[in-house]
Amino acid sequence: MPARPTLAILGASGDLTARLLLPALFRNENREELETLRIVGYALEDWDAETFRAHVRQSLDEFAPPVSQDAWRRFSERLDYRSGDMTGPKLAVLEEVIDGPASFYLALPPGVFAEAAQGLGDAGLQDESKGPRRLVIEKPFGTDLASSRALEADVSRDWREDQIFRIDHFLGKETTQNILVFRFANRFLEPVLNSQHVRQVQITASETLGLEGRYKYYDKSGAMRDMLQNHLMQLFTITAMEPPPLWDERVLRDHKVEVLKSVKPFEPAHLEHRAARGQYAAGRSGGETVPGYLEEPDIPADSITETYAAIRLELDTWRWKGVPFYMRSGKRLSGDITEIAIEFKRPPSQLFRETRLAQCEPNWLVFRVKPDETIELVAHAKKPGLGMESHPVSLRTDYAADRSAEYAAYDQLLLDVIEGDHTPFLRYDEVEAAWEVVQPLLDAWESGTPEPYEAGSDGPASADRLLEHGDRWRPLIP
Amino acid sequence: MPARPTLAILGASGDLTARLLLPALFRNENREELETLRIVGYALEDWDAETFRAHVRQSLDEFAPPVSQDAWRRFSERLDYRSGDMTGPKLAVLEEVIDGPASFYLALPPGVFAEAAQGLGDAGLQDESKGPRRLVIEKPFGTDLASSRALEADVSRDWREDQIFRIDHFLGKETTQNILVFRFANRFLEPVLNSQHVRQVQITASETLGLEGRYKYYDKSGAMRDMLQNHLMQLFTITAMEPPPLWDERVLRDHKVEVLKSVKPFEPAHLEHRAARGQYAAGRSGGETVPGYLEEPDIPADSITETYAAIRLELDTWRWKGVPFYMRSGKRLSGDITEIAIEFKRPPSQLFRETRLAQCEPNWLVFRVKPDETIELVAHAKKPGLGMESHPVSLRTDYAADRSAEYAAYDQLLLDVIEGDHTPFLRYDEVEAAWEVVQPLLDAWESGTPEPYEAGSDGPASADRLLEHGDRWRPLIP
Repeated sequence: MPARPTLAILGASGDLTARLLLPALFRNENREELETLRIVGYALEDWDAETFRAHVRQSLDEFAPPVSQDAWRRFSERLDYRSGDMTGPKLAVLEEVIDGPASFYLALPPGVFAEAAQGLGDAGLQDESKGPRRLVIEKPFGTDLASSRALEADVSRDWREDQIFRIDHFLGKETTQNILVFRFANRFLEPVLNSQHVRQVQITASETLGLEGRYKYYDKSGAMRDMLQNHLMQLFTITAMEPPPLWDERVLRDHKVEVLKSVKPFEPAHLEHRAARGQYAAGRSGGETVPGYLEEPDIPADSITETYAAIRLELDTWRWKGVPFYMRSGKRLSGDITEIAIEFKRPPSQLFRETRLAQCEPNWLVFRVKPDETIELVAHAKKPGLGMESHPVSLRTDYAADRSAEYAAYDQLLLDVIEGDHTPFLRYDEVEAAWEVVQPLLDAWESGTPEPYEAGSDGPASADRLLEHGDRWRPLIP
Repeated sequence: MPARPTLAILGASGDLTARLLLPALFRNENREELETLRIVGYALEDWDAETFRAHVRQSLDEFAPPVSQDAWRRFSERLDYRSGDMTGPKLAVLEEVIDGPASFYLALPPGVFAEAAQGLGDAGLQDESKGPRRLVIEKPFGTDLASSRALEADVSRDWREDQIFRIDHFLGKETTQNILVFRFANRFLEPVLNSQHVRQVQITASETLGLEGRYKYYDKSGAMRDMLQNHLMQLFTITAMEPPPLWDERVLRDHKVEVLKSVKPFEPAHLEHRAARGQYAAGRSGGETVPGYLEEPDIPADSITETYAAIRLELDTWRWKGVPFYMRSGKRLSGDITEIAIEFKRPPSQLFRETRLAQCEPNWLVFRVKPDETIELVAHAKKPGLGMESHPVSLRTDYAADRSAEYAAYDQLLLDVIEGDHTPFLRYDEVEAAWEVVQPLLDAWESGTPEPYEAGSDGPASADRLLEHGDRWRPLIP
């Protein structure tokens, strides 16, 4: 009989575990995808297995209802618990419950990643004589290029690259994976995705919400580290990458790294035309008056953390030379939208210039993640009725409309960890290349101040300076 | 005060006038598009203007209800009537009511076209000293290449080419015009409409109906003369034409003629792989048992008229070399559909061959005229949920869903005649080139017999012999 695989969650009493991991695992239980998996919680709390099961049940009732009696019975039988800190001697207790392949999910604060990875190594848990051993880490992978390299040096002391699964949950989203399918499983799109036909690409993740209690974390992070360097950079690489000849984790990630490596570096002298930052001031959001960032709890009155960041990326490649990739993300903005929007150039011949079609707007292809997961193609068709007039028509498809897409990303990612499929995870050179792209901005933004923008607005006016040849930011309300 | 324009309808007491022209004119009245237009009926019936008005009112009540009192008052004031045959001395009576620009619509049996055109000439009505004079003819323009040339010689005795408006009402349909807009007002489509990316094009006009009383006409015509040589050939040229540099009636029609001129001629020796004909036998249609063609009233028992025709056109052009254009039309088939369907090749790289996406079907772009006017793009997207599975998604738009598209084509065409816009009308060299394409088939089909097919089926089996490299006819039910 083959050994049972184990998923060990380090930080099993924490918020990430309760809100994301346990609900994702339980949904996979409902789909009967978990097979013989054993789940072991590990945390400082001096719980026994029964206490942990009660905690899990409470989390599921809150974050993954309804919990059926039958599924809960199966799920609870998988659960075990051990307590301890992140030192090797304590972690060694996990050997008691592991007798084969195992994945160690660090559901821990980022400051503990290195200690936990090395503690597991000290306990010999990375040893693969009983089966594959995997380490799962979620961003942030450092806070800049140097700290990212330091973290990598610590983690890789005991773990090989192919044992490490770095999660960016945007890679588990339907839309993200769909960009790949839509680009490469269809014939009509790929031939026009290049500088001959594309005018610009806008990648946006905007929120109306503020910090929602995460004041201390956010003030050390900011929009660039929280969203752009990781999530939006992933959407960017998947949109811009060359077609891989194979559906292979190595080839796919090589191609993504190539995109990042071909980004034209930010020159300090020209930063103001390639990057903008803002910080929200008091304003109105969701019909209510809301305070400015500097008035929020736990935020220093002289904080220069940006709550809005925008950049223009340029690629020195045959495919994309001359096509600006605009990326922006912020909090307390006018709308909640996450999308990749590709604008095509106008037709080379203004054939209908003598007709009322003369004013026709360009085409957009939009992959939308939020608020709804859709693909939309805005095209021109003849307006029904007399005369040669056009109107924009939207060819669109809804998909995944029936699921909570924000969280469901973890469902697939956890299964991929257990199955050892590296495709939707980050390789370290990807992480490093993304830090290399943004490091000049992080340096520049150590001083000066972000431009204030009114809460509920579209962000700081200085973001408009990034725009080339008459481009305009897309509206934040779909 | 400028002279009032006149539309003279020759054959004003006939079926075409009652069913199509008067309703179209009246809808334009409702849209307040007719301005000062005067409408003069002309026919053999010894009516006065009041009798004609009563006839018009009756036609509108039947074919264009509801008729509002207000619009009818305005419309009836435009109406006048003169009676006579198609000789010059009789037609000269029309001079009484015409004092400026005039269009003469030959709503007559095709056998009378030449006589009427010359009668108008004998009466001097083509003389443009008081304003433009236009002659409107609807297909059929001859029944083969020789008769078409003879008709043209007769008509052009007194009328210049730019005075003649040849109607193919398919050119007035929304979808037909929309193909032009969709191709040339959007950026993403035109670059992939060529032999590098397109596998095949299928143009279909299928009917479940039989002859509906038009026995004598149809037996002299058949599917090739009734549909393929004209209507489907128009859809073909508009789909295949090179982008015109100008929206100009001369350039547009030049480009359409170029398509016809580049069709690879039908070689008598290889006809069976490029053309097929059928004749419906008894079967079931619309839930009822229906007789075969040879059992229909007025049909000779040895008739070899085809009620189904299919051809494969090949173009010797840089753009389309190697892409088959299949065209078919027939009566008593399994479905009612009119569409242009473009199949794209599979992606060059079978990237997802290791995943469950391996079996993905190719993309289709469909311009549908009937039963609903839509543009549909069948693409592949990731199937929502776990795993890398695709499903075909349909990106589609409905337009013109609110109008009776079959007849509304005339609304625009009549206005174009009155305004003198040649764009949606056929130039003689177009007509001639279309006859040249099909003449070898007409010659071959003078002998032999069409293959019988069961009423309610998809047509004769021999049509499958046209298909290349594993192509299959699309289903006749959308």
